[in-house]
Amino acid sequence: MTHNTRSALIIIDMQNDFVLPNGPVCVAGAAATVPLISLLLSHFRQQQGPVFHVVREHRADGSDVDNFRKALFAEDKKFVIPGTAGCEIVEPLQPIANEYRLVKPRFSAFMQTELDMILRRLAITQLVVCGTQYPNCIRATVLDAVSLDYQVTLVTDATSAQTADVAAANILDMANIGVSCLTTHQFITENA
Amino acid sequence: MTHNTRSALIIIDMQNDFVLPNGPVCVAGAAATVPLISLLLSHFRQQQGPVFHVVREHRADGSDVDNFRKALFAEDKKFVIPGTAGCEIVEPLQPIANEYRLVKPRFSAFMQTELDMILRRLAITQLVVCGTQYPNCIRATVLDAVSLDYQVTLVTDATSAQTADVAAANILDMANIGVSCLTTHQFITENA
Repeated sequence: MTHNTRSALIIIDMQNDFVLPNGPVCVAGAAATVPLISLLLSHFRQQQGPVFHVVREHRADGSDVDNFRKALFAEDKKFVIPGTAGCEIVEPLQPIANEYRLVKPRFSAFMQTELDMILRRLAITQLVVCGTQYPNCIRATVLDAVSLDYQVTLVTDATSAQTADVAAANILDMANIGVSCLTTHQFITENA
Repeated sequence: MTHNTRSALIIIDMQNDFVLPNGPVCVAGAAATVPLISLLLSHFRQQQGPVFHVVREHRADGSDVDNFRKALFAEDKKFVIPGTAGCEIVEPLQPIANEYRLVKPRFSAFMQTELDMILRRLAITQLVVCGTQYPNCIRATVLDAVSLDYQVTLVTDATSAQTADVAAANILDMANIGVSCLTTHQFITENA
């Protein structure tokens, strides 16, 4: 597939278990971002820009769960197990043909994944990041992306946290290391 | 060298250019942490626990500087160039024989360094982290450490930021992923 931009859209962890209000590890702000991420997806699909759906998966025995969530997982609050509905990407954001779906075993979309390798092959220089949640997977991915010299745009209202204060504090810290923090509307208008 | 603990002390970026008030990239809160980091250093030296002094270095031509600081570096605000006084670790915290000094090229002490490899060989399972600054090198290092399944203790008053608000927001986010956040006094008392 040939892409018309040097930008890629990186959507993080928008799976039912993290997004739906009754999900076992629901992020409070995530559901409200779905329509905005939909707009970003349409924009990238129109411009034939590459899209990466980065997700979590865990083995049902919990052997690969982050240490700090092992107890939660063991308490019958299992989440993102392949084959379950909770592991699926929320319906409005499901990947279409030619989009990338990547599993990340930890916070950062770069840690032990093919992401950097594929981006280099596609000659991508700018990452447009959205999804959930601000302090963990978003922050770790952005720190790695900046470290690897990608230009990073964070789409602030298409990214979520448990509280508005946590979101604001993370945006401030990321803006201070050169991350461009734009709303969905600003991003789409500036890149029409 | 044989070590008596499974814990290692990780001191990040306590170099003159980041700490001294007239340094070109001074972190406002860093100088105040020097006496507390000294206490942690003495504690680890007494207990023969391994100590890692993790630092930055940049080539004088700026070719390896983080993108977001390239302009600053070019404006005659060069920093942490090997051989200059600014690159040295602040005097009270200088390494002694058998302590590790590691150069990290980016935020995380794990990114493209030997840190994880050495820690595994030493059978270290717990990291005690301090230094500067909260939102960048500390946060990236802690996110990687948690991802790699180390137990992490962050020594809150031995770690610094430009403002108290930034420090507090970062502590909250790290506590939420299982990082033990203790003061120097608390850590030393609990590990006497």
